[in-house]
Amino acid sequence: MKKIINKVEDIVIEMCEGMVKAHPEQLSFNKKYKLITRKELNKNKVSLISGGGSGHEPAHGGFVGKGMLDVAVCGDVFASPSTIQVYNAITKTESNKGTLLIIKNYSGDCMNFDGAAEMAEDDDIKVEKVYVNDDVAVKDSLYTIGRRGVAGTVFVHKIAGAAAEKGHELLKVKTAAEKAIQNVRSIGFAFTSCTVPAKGSPTFTLGDDEMEFGVGIHGEPGIAREKIVSADELAEKMLNRIIVDLPYESGDDIALMVNGFGSTPLQELYLLNNSVNKILENKNINVYKTFVGNYMTAIDMSGASISLMKLDEELKELLDYPSDAPAFKV
Amino acid sequence: MKKIINKVEDIVIEMCEGMVKAHPEQLSFNKKYKLITRKELNKNKVSLISGGGSGHEPAHGGFVGKGMLDVAVCGDVFASPSTIQVYNAITKTESNKGTLLIIKNYSGDCMNFDGAAEMAEDDDIKVEKVYVNDDVAVKDSLYTIGRRGVAGTVFVHKIAGAAAEKGHELLKVKTAAEKAIQNVRSIGFAFTSCTVPAKGSPTFTLGDDEMEFGVGIHGEPGIAREKIVSADELAEKMLNRIIVDLPYESGDDIALMVNGFGSTPLQELYLLNNSVNKILENKNINVYKTFVGNYMTAIDMSGASISLMKLDEELKELLDYPSDAPAFKV
Repeated sequence: MKKIINKVEDIVIEMCEGMVKAHPEQLSFNKKYKLITRKELNKNKVSLISGGGSGHEPAHGGFVGKGMLDVAVCGDVFASPSTIQVYNAITKTESNKGTLLIIKNYSGDCMNFDGAAEMAEDDDIKVEKVYVNDDVAVKDSLYTIGRRGVAGTVFVHKIAGAAAEKGHELLKVKTAAEKAIQNVRSIGFAFTSCTVPAKGSPTFTLGDDEMEFGVGIHGEPGIAREKIVSADELAEKMLNRIIVDLPYESGDDIALMVNGFGSTPLQELYLLNNSVNKILENKNINVYKTFVGNYMTAIDMSGASISLMKLDEELKELLDYPSDAPAFKV
Repeated sequence: MKKIINKVEDIVIEMCEGMVKAHPEQLSFNKKYKLITRKELNKNKVSLISGGGSGHEPAHGGFVGKGMLDVAVCGDVFASPSTIQVYNAITKTESNKGTLLIIKNYSGDCMNFDGAAEMAEDDDIKVEKVYVNDDVAVKDSLYTIGRRGVAGTVFVHKIAGAAAEKGHELLKVKTAAEKAIQNVRSIGFAFTSCTVPAKGSPTFTLGDDEMEFGVGIHGEPGIAREKIVSADELAEKMLNRIIVDLPYESGDDIALMVNGFGSTPLQELYLLNNSVNKILENKNINVYKTFVGNYMTAIDMSGASISLMKLDEELKELLDYPSDAPAFKV
């Protein structure tokens, strides 16, 4: 295992500290509960919390900032943060307008975020929750019942974050987040496996000419193990699954994310973006805004995902609203 | 070779088109001369041009924007753009205040950018040039005489870009760029080789426990092939080479860049940033601003570089000046 690390057991703490040290004017780190928090909290806006297992950097700490999240709760690599961690995130960022939890739909995350919400409600803190399940690849998976939450979660952070920053009440922020969830779909593929540091060897193996189509962001199996195809064919295979699902239709305006899984270089992500754009143009689906880069990774997996979010005027306005989160400056 | 590509010969064009399609409001692409250009050019500011071989994405197209470059000239993968390409970049972005070329110190780039400057001067266009040579690893290398230009080049784009945007005259912009060059030093290492698409196999091979220390951004040999060490030891080895070179001293303010070479995930870059920060703090060197991410890659090489730029008040002001370049929003 070739990684930039000291001790395996210190990775999450040291990585979080490295992230916060890169943005000391904006972020602070609570080492005990592994919370990356905005330095300037606003008690008069809805508090927004997300998180999950580590290994998806910049998710979620990189999305903490004005116009996005107030705090990211960091679990161990590919492991949900505990109920106590999430509960502390809620109490430490309590707002007069209540708290919204943005949860990726994995059984562990749902259980621990739900438990923390119950504890906080016992303290008379208003808490609402949304569950992101944008991955069209598989219905049930290794880690969850129902669809998995993947890179589309970043769009949900952005939409809810803008609604909160504008001063909307809790239920209105929740409604905006749910609108984003209803309109976002994603799918991914992997050329290579990730290597979980504690294990030290690849989670799965693929032949030199194979890819895992529909892979999850923890290296979970997807739809099929298939032969590698060209960028144009790959974009078409991916979009074919996404477009029929909502469906996205001729004349629709969308936001597009071409997301790298960790070790795929920008050269290839931009090339994939070109293939995706050609197909969307042919289908008369208008790309209103594009995001290409590493947003929701799977440690060092090679591969990428595509996410589409259908936009109405409200979602466009919220998407365009300023954000100074380190990994999502708008 | 597992890559997201169509045909090897189309990579640069398709990648550039994918980059421009991600930022259509800001960038345009001239396919004939492979130029990524700002859509809104300002004739009353010094025109700033950089470029070089492709394979270093987001360099240099991602640094085109208000407050940074006006045009990036894209060569083939790891090959200098031609004199004609650079000449067209100069003539198509001609400004009343003249043009500054920011050249990474590789023999091919120097020859072709110099040739283009001569051609433009024959057309009565004022052209000045600076050469970036921030890599402390080796004196002469596979591709150049003298030190190589690596990730520190991005700081030079930023400083010169701000000086130009502020309306300074050509010589003053050049002086600012040269001040940045004089104050920036870098070093890198690789855990794995890159794979040049046209070759289809890794440029070099390393044992499972080996790294190339002092590697160049084209996979050129560095100082030594060594055993992998911990993140803290690696940071110390790298900083030891950089710090004595300028030298950077106790009480100095610096800008820090922890740059990934393409396939190293953010998790590891943030962890390396933590190690670097601990050492700089011990040496009483103050980090004024930090940049962690993929800025100057080597296709899909695994590894990273560290760059330090010593700052005075002028450089701080220019570093903080707004930029909307897609890969360097300030």
